[in-house]
Order: sequence, then structure tokens, then C-alpha cells
Amino acid sequence: MGVFLDLFAGKTVERPPFWFMRQAGRYMAEYRAVRAEVGDFLDLCYSPKKATEVTLQPIQRFGMDAAIIFSDILVVPHALGSAVHFEKGEGPRVEPVKNGADIARLDESKMPGKLAPVYEAIAATRASLPKDIALIGFAGAPWTLACYMLEGRGKTDFSTARRAAYTTPSLLAALIGVLSSAVVEHLCAQVEAGADALQLFDTWAGLVPVSQREALITGPARAVIAEVKRRHPQVPIIAFPKGLGLDLPHYAQSTQADGLSVDMQTDITSLNVACVLQGNLDPLLLASSREGTLREATRLREAMAGTRFVFNLGHGIVPDTPVEHVTALSELLLQKVA
Amino acid sequence: MGVFLDLFAGKTVERPPFWFMRQAGRYMAEYRAVRAEVGDFLDLCYSPKKATEVTLQPIQRFGMDAAIIFSDILVVPHALGSAVHFEKGEGPRVEPVKNGADIARLDESKMPGKLAPVYEAIAATRASLPKDIALIGFAGAPWTLACYMLEGRGKTDFSTARRAAYTTPSLLAALIGVLSSAVVEHLCAQVEAGADALQLFDTWAGLVPVSQREALITGPARAVIAEVKRRHPQVPIIAFPKGLGLDLPHYAQSTQADGLSVDMQTDITSLNVACVLQGNLDPLLLASSREGTLREATRLREAMAGTRFVFNLGHGIVPDTPVEHVTALSELLLQKVA
Repeated sequence: MGVFLDLFAGKTVERPPFWFMRQAGRYMAEYRAVRAEVGDFLDLCYSPKKATEVTLQPIQRFGMDAAIIFSDILVVPHALGSAVHFEKGEGPRVEPVKNGADIARLDESKMPGKLAPVYEAIAATRASLPKDIALIGFAGAPWTLACYMLEGRGKTDFSTARRAAYTTPSLLAALIGVLSSAVVEHLCAQVEAGADALQLFDTWAGLVPVSQREALITGPARAVIAEVKRRHPQVPIIAFPKGLGLDLPHYAQSTQADGLSVDMQTDITSLNVACVLQGNLDPLLLASSREGTLREATRLREAMAGTRFVFNLGHGIVPDTPVEHVTALSELLLQKVA
Repeated sequence: MGVFLDLFAGKTVERPPFWFMRQAGRYMAEYRAVRAEVGDFLDLCYSPKKATEVTLQPIQRFGMDAAIIFSDILVVPHALGSAVHFEKGEGPRVEPVKNGADIARLDESKMPGKLAPVYEAIAATRASLPKDIALIGFAGAPWTLACYMLEGRGKTDFSTARRAAYTTPSLLAALIGVLSSAVVEHLCAQVEAGADALQLFDTWAGLVPVSQREALITGPARAVIAEVKRRHPQVPIIAFPKGLGLDLPHYAQSTQADGLSVDMQTDITSLNVACVLQGNLDPLLLASSREGTLREATRLREAMAGTRFVFNLGHGIVPDTPVEHVTALSELLLQKVA
């Protein structure tokens, strides 16, 4: 095992492991070349060969300690039967869920078949990756998936989804239930295909009022994590409930996640948790300044010394990030801590 | 004085005072009628007669304890010389600030003249309002104004503004400095025209990483509040740094604001502060459910009993809010607490 899995196994590591959210992406020319070969973005996710290729690209170029399978959180609604497509520059469009009949039509039974290409990509990637590089599978958390499914699109304040908590709470609860089950199946299938660790992305957790957080965020995460752990107790699960700020320790304790990914707005050094912390360099700093990035990365590693820490960003790499910034940061992070 | 100013003066009040952010707005037919008489949204802000009329409308209909002058945070950049207009359904557009020359062109000297109609509206509103209803003046905080000025528009993640902290920190600092001075002048002029209290809106505070929060959020708020208090020590100042979550107590202590407005994502009952707390019913609940609103309002008043509390929303009233929900909520809030 490499430093990433060693850290989660409680072993001493010579430096913090690192990987970057959206490390396979548009900022890399070799990614753009593969992307140009397919039409819709989902075609890339569903091509095992191409998804494997782009998953491996950043590892080959930068040497991160973990690869994350190239996929999208919206493959779950898609595999449940929702129409999903990506408008150029407009973000995702999802066939909106409007009533109980729409939820009843969501069909988990076809999911394994529809997502087979993702699992194939995971198997192929795991076979190609060096043993000491971990492979991370992932899924969107139920609330974040529900946001897209109720709203029908991204790049919005998700007020349709947020209102559903007041206007149609039982519909929202039913959708969260369906999605929780589907997310468990998708995460477990990724482990069975070869994923060594999992990340659960709750990108829109911060939109939820505290009074609804147990029902929509913490409870579903706890249930998903418990069931995945029951089936695969050895696989570390990192949760990323973006926007919870100083409430993260409560979430961590309540969900029993093995790791917590922290956004760049939060002071990661101030969080008192028992689990691994992951984060949280600002991707806009990485895009903006090589020197600033190296300075902040050094500060962050020093501040987190002595803790169980995975170096990452606070959110995904942005498309106009200079590749040489990622190279310089990776070279720094590959150095052992003195 | 009425309950609103009594509360800030430290007197015992028979019930929590209440007002609602964006209480004058599109959800009211009488507002839409006035709005239809003018072309650009700013024309409404700059018509003393019409701005007065719409400011008074919700007081006449619902009986809130405070009116907030009908205006917009972008009148400050506009009065400094930036072109500002509002695209229908697209949010505001502001001539982008790109370099030092753009900042040098911002001219505070013309601000009092350009904003004279706002001050006229304040004087006229104060003259028309019953003595026991407070009149609130307001401004956008420097960071939030800088967001629009650097980005050139709203409805975005303000990544241009957030990047400026890394790519052109001295330009951003200069802009924050210019805006801090202009905000002080605008707030003080509103007091001199008749405003009884002030609110400082830092709508995009939550986007700023903690490491930059002192420079961009807390420091400027502290400076603005200190200078306004030096000139007008009797006028309560409420700050609304949206998105700070459980870090609000630090902000409150550091800025010495008299009141803190709390967004709906935060548990207002968990904040331990010396100042007044204001908030934080979810405007989407108000839009969605009359019964849910009354239940939650009752819970909130009970939970805040014994504290210095102004009932408000966690953000502005949304346009499709049924007027009868606002009526029912206001009737509840006008009742004395047993």
C-alpha cells in the first residue's frame, strides 16, 4: 500500500498523501484531446477505455497518491432513468422530478447494467495503476443529487429543491430514500470493481438550514456510510459536505466518515475531529499564482503536521489552471516532510 | 421610540421588533404598480417620491417596526462613477474595474450630489413614518460591492473578485479602501437625512477563505462601523455578513456591530454574542407555507426569549411570496409575548 491507504489504516506516513479534486480535467491538453473525441460529456464517462485513460493522465504526469475515477455524480440519476445531458457552458440538465410518479419511475434494477462501463473503467484503471497509488470511487450524496433532479439544472441557487423541504417534504424524503439506496449500490459496486477508497460529494450541503440538516445531509450520509461499511468495512470513506464550516466536527462524529474533505472557506486547522482531514488549498490560488500556491501549501502542511491529513484542494481544479502550477505543487508535495 | 430602537437602547420590549429584508418588493401588487411607472430599476431608487412610496407600502399594509429605505447597494459604485444597470431577470451589470486607473477614476466627491435623491427619500420617508417606526438606512459592505465591481455582474460565483485576492491583492486592497470610505460617507449621509439605524450588507462574505477574512470582511466592517459610530454614536448598526456560520461571534466581537443579522442556514439559537441578533426565518418557508411559517416563527420567538432579538428573515423576501403569508406572519409578530 502507498501513503494514501497507509494513512487511513492508521500507519505513520513519511509525508501527507495528496490528490486533487478534478485532477483529470480541462486544464490538461491530453484530457482535452480525449474529450474532443466524444460528443456528450456522459459519453466520456461511459467509455471504459477513455475514462480509464483520462483517470490515469494526471497520475502519469504529476504522481498523485490517489487517482479518482473519471465519472460524474449525475450518472446515478441517469442510471435510475432520468434524462441527463450537459449543455456547453451551461452545466448539467436533468429531467426534473416533479411528483411521486416521477420518483416511482426511478428504477434501481437497471442501474448495474447502465453503470457497467463505469465499473469496467474502475477495473481497468486499477489494473493499470501502480500498487501504491489508491483508486478512489465516488458518488454524489442524496441531497446534492436531489438538488439537480428537483431543479432540473445546475448553476442556480437550487431554490426548487430547497422549497421542496417545505412544500413537498414527503416527496423530498422519498427521493432522498431512493437516492440513498442507489448511492450505496453504486459505491459498493465501485469497491467490488476495484476502488480502494470512496468519496461522497455533498456539494450543496451548505444550502440547507440547520434545522433540516439531520434529515437531508447528516442522516443520509450516516445511513449510506453505515451500509457501505457493513459490506466493505476495510474501505475508507471520505465525505465532503461543502459549506458546513465550523459544524463539520458534528457531522464527522455523527456520520463516522473515515475522512472529511474541507472547503477553502473553512480553517482546516481549527477543526477538532477524530477522522482524517483532507483539503483545502483554494483552487483559485492554484490557478493564480505558483509562488503563492507553494507558500500556502508549505504553510498548510506545517500547520497540519502531526495530524492525519490528506493534502487536497478545497474544491475542484478550475479549467484555466496552468499545468506548471500543478507540476510545481505536486513536486513540493512529493517531498518528505523533514 | 418604538420597540425596534428601544431594543437597541437596552430597554425591555414587550415583544421582539420585526421587519423583513426586501419587505418592499415585487411580491406586493402596489410595489409592482409603482415599479411599472419607471424604466430602469435605478430610476426607482433615484425618484424620491416613488422610493418613499414603496418604502412606506409594507409598513402601511403589515405594520412592521422598521422601514428600510428602498434603494440598492449598487448606488454606491454608481455614484462613484461606475456605469450600473439592471438586465431583466439577469441581475445587475456593473462596468468592471480592471486596473488602478479604473479605481483612480472612482470619484467620491460627486457622490453626495448623485445620491441626493436617496437622502431626499429618507427625509420624506422619515417625515411620513409614525414616530414609533424606525427607518433603516443601508449600504453594501466593501467586499460585496467589490465583488460586483470586479466581476461586472451578479448571478455568478464571483471568481474574478475572489482571484483578485491572489493576482492583484494591492488593487483589491485599494478598491476596498475606496469603497470603505464611500460606504462610511453614504451611511452617515443617510443618518443625517433621517435614518434611525443602519444595516451593512456583506452578502458574499461567505465566499472568502478564512485566511483573507480579516482583510476583506472583518477589518473593513470594523473600520466602517468605528467611523460611523464616531460621527453618530447613537445610531445602531446591524451587520449582515452572510455565510459566516458559527464564526459569527468572532465577527461580532471584532467589529463591535450593535446587531448581527443571521442567515437561514445558521442556528441563530446557538450563537453566543453580546449584541442583538436578527433573523432568521427562511424566506422560502415564508413563500411556501403559511402554517409552517407561523409554527417556525413561534418556535423562533420562544427559542430567542430572554435575548435581544429582532425577528427577520435569513435573506430577502422572494418575489412569488403570497402577500397573505406576510400578513399572517406580521399579525403573529405584532402580538405581545406572553
